[in-house]
Amino acid sequence: MPQDRSGRPARITDVAALAGVSIGTASKALNDTGQLRDETRARVKDAAEKLGFVGDARARALSSGRTYTVGMVTTDSFGRFTMPVLLGAEDALSAGEVMVLLADTRDDHVREAHYLRSLVARGVDGIIVTGRSADARPPIDVPVPVPVVYALTPSTSASDVSVTLDDAGGAADAAAHVLALGRRRVAVVSGPADARSAVSRAAGARSVLGDRMVGEPMHGEWSERWGRQAVDLLDRAQADVDAVVCGNDQIARGVCDRLRETGRSVPGDVAVTGYDDWDVVALASRPPLTTVDMRLDELGRIAGRSLLELVAGGRPASVSVTPSLVVRESTVGA
Amino acid sequence: MPQDRSGRPARITDVAALAGVSIGTASKALNDTGQLRDETRARVKDAAEKLGFVGDARARALSSGRTYTVGMVTTDSFGRFTMPVLLGAEDALSAGEVMVLLADTRDDHVREAHYLRSLVARGVDGIIVTGRSADARPPIDVPVPVPVVYALTPSTSASDVSVTLDDAGGAADAAAHVLALGRRRVAVVSGPADARSAVSRAAGARSVLGDRMVGEPMHGEWSERWGRQAVDLLDRAQADVDAVVCGNDQIARGVCDRLRETGRSVPGDVAVTGYDDWDVVALASRPPLTTVDMRLDELGRIAGRSLLELVAGGRPASVSVTPSLVVRESTVGA
Repeated sequence: MPQDRSGRPARITDVAALAGVSIGTASKALNDTGQLRDETRARVKDAAEKLGFVGDARARALSSGRTYTVGMVTTDSFGRFTMPVLLGAEDALSAGEVMVLLADTRDDHVREAHYLRSLVARGVDGIIVTGRSADARPPIDVPVPVPVVYALTPSTSASDVSVTLDDAGGAADAAAHVLALGRRRVAVVSGPADARSAVSRAAGARSVLGDRMVGEPMHGEWSERWGRQAVDLLDRAQADVDAVVCGNDQIARGVCDRLRETGRSVPGDVAVTGYDDWDVVALASRPPLTTVDMRLDELGRIAGRSLLELVAGGRPASVSVTPSLVVRESTVGA
Repeated sequence: MPQDRSGRPARITDVAALAGVSIGTASKALNDTGQLRDETRARVKDAAEKLGFVGDARARALSSGRTYTVGMVTTDSFGRFTMPVLLGAEDALSAGEVMVLLADTRDDHVREAHYLRSLVARGVDGIIVTGRSADARPPIDVPVPVPVVYALTPSTSASDVSVTLDDAGGAADAAAHVLALGRRRVAVVSGPADARSAVSRAAGARSVLGDRMVGEPMHGEWSERWGRQAVDLLDRAQADVDAVVCGNDQIARGVCDRLRETGRSVPGDVAVTGYDDWDVVALASRPPLTTVDMRLDELGRIAGRSLLELVAGGRPASVSVTPSLVVRESTVGA
């Protein structure tokens, strides 16, 4: 614990004494204000670092009218999507300069309203709203104007700033990959027909596959079980596929299992792609899945930067993040 | 958005006017201070609710010397463990009254020190320290005294308050369950020999199984692959088991897969138990896994309550949370 020999925390007077400057100069140097020589500023900061000088963020907040705190409101209790987004946002908010107050609404409107009031009462500089779905949501209802960025789950209002994923683009990349491998009879097996991401991914794959697609995209639940069932349905229809582009990793894992259990090799007989790059599924699959990394961390970084831009009075545009293909053994062999 | 017709946020003068009381009375009613009739207090609160009056948490914080904010420092970037603990802690901190500043250290000591300084500078009322492992960690290093509770990952210092999981107890429950089903030749397949939770779980199972255990507990990685390998090792040793108690759900899923692939039914021939109750693994397993729910949410609630007790000057004891067995088809059939 960095402190002087008396055991008490360092004060600004200690910093000034060690740097050999006045208290006013030390304060200006630490707050990056005033007209000082670079060398002086650096000497004061060195002294503060040596003494473990903490300062008082509350005093700085009061004098600047900012709290250097943002709220992050999420409906994704499970955390599968929220944590990567949060990590990215933390990066953009320069880890510790601006801190994140996390509020999990658990899909409850009353709880959301309560949290939003509490965040506003705390004077947050802005709010990032996120969730587990790509389906748009109504704008949040706050009693005073506050900068807001929607991440992953966009706002239904076009005037809001939303950072979303390019689901169609990611699926198009996966489809182009299997075509490049010479596959010509491709099935598309996606998630629920009423989920925006499932529909976007199917449409993205179709845009690239054209008449290499056997039948219409198939929709079902986001599960391994649906992947296994889809293989049975394709077999019953004698689809004779040489590739399956799936809407997520769980479906793809089910497809791989059922193909193996019915005597076909992956990728020898059939190439399979997933979507999400969720380790516990994509890496445990036999074989490990070629899949699409959603780049949730990048989405979080952009959301954080957009929020800072809004706070500073700028007008950032809504953005769609481009995912990236991760190639593994389910398409290219071991 | 609740506000008056002028479009500006409601002020305490508006609340006082609507309730027909003085500003001083309105303030006392809203802050639950002073000597007021219950009826008056209720009328003021109704008026505040109607007008969407938010108040200023910062003013309250300054007058009380508290910020109604706690820090949660985690090393678990992935969020698998942190989010349930956080949700539990939020419950205990009465959702929005005390809010959580989340700081993810990503296992980086420099980043941890930086976050801790920032949390202290913000005047947090206390800090919850958590992570992904049950292995003890050194106490955090803060420049001023602040109440701290360790959750899941205990402190190495016995004078700190740590809330941990009873891993041995959970595994003992799973072992007692397979004995109650009449199984008599039981293998224990756990995680890495240098992970405290893997060793505790193996020891807990052994304490119940006694000479019903075939050979020593087997240690390997926390993966499906290790589960499959363990079945092969048991077969090579002609262990002829009728139950396998596993150290986590991934291992148990691998055990189920390998047993099925080598012609044995689960649970008909061999009963299998997991540990963690991690949906994406336990429910996707064929069959779904009987497993141990760690009750991370309860651990989070206890951590939150213990922190509030510390903040209030109390001396809460360290606690071990009792997990609970979840029975599914891997032990009792469909």
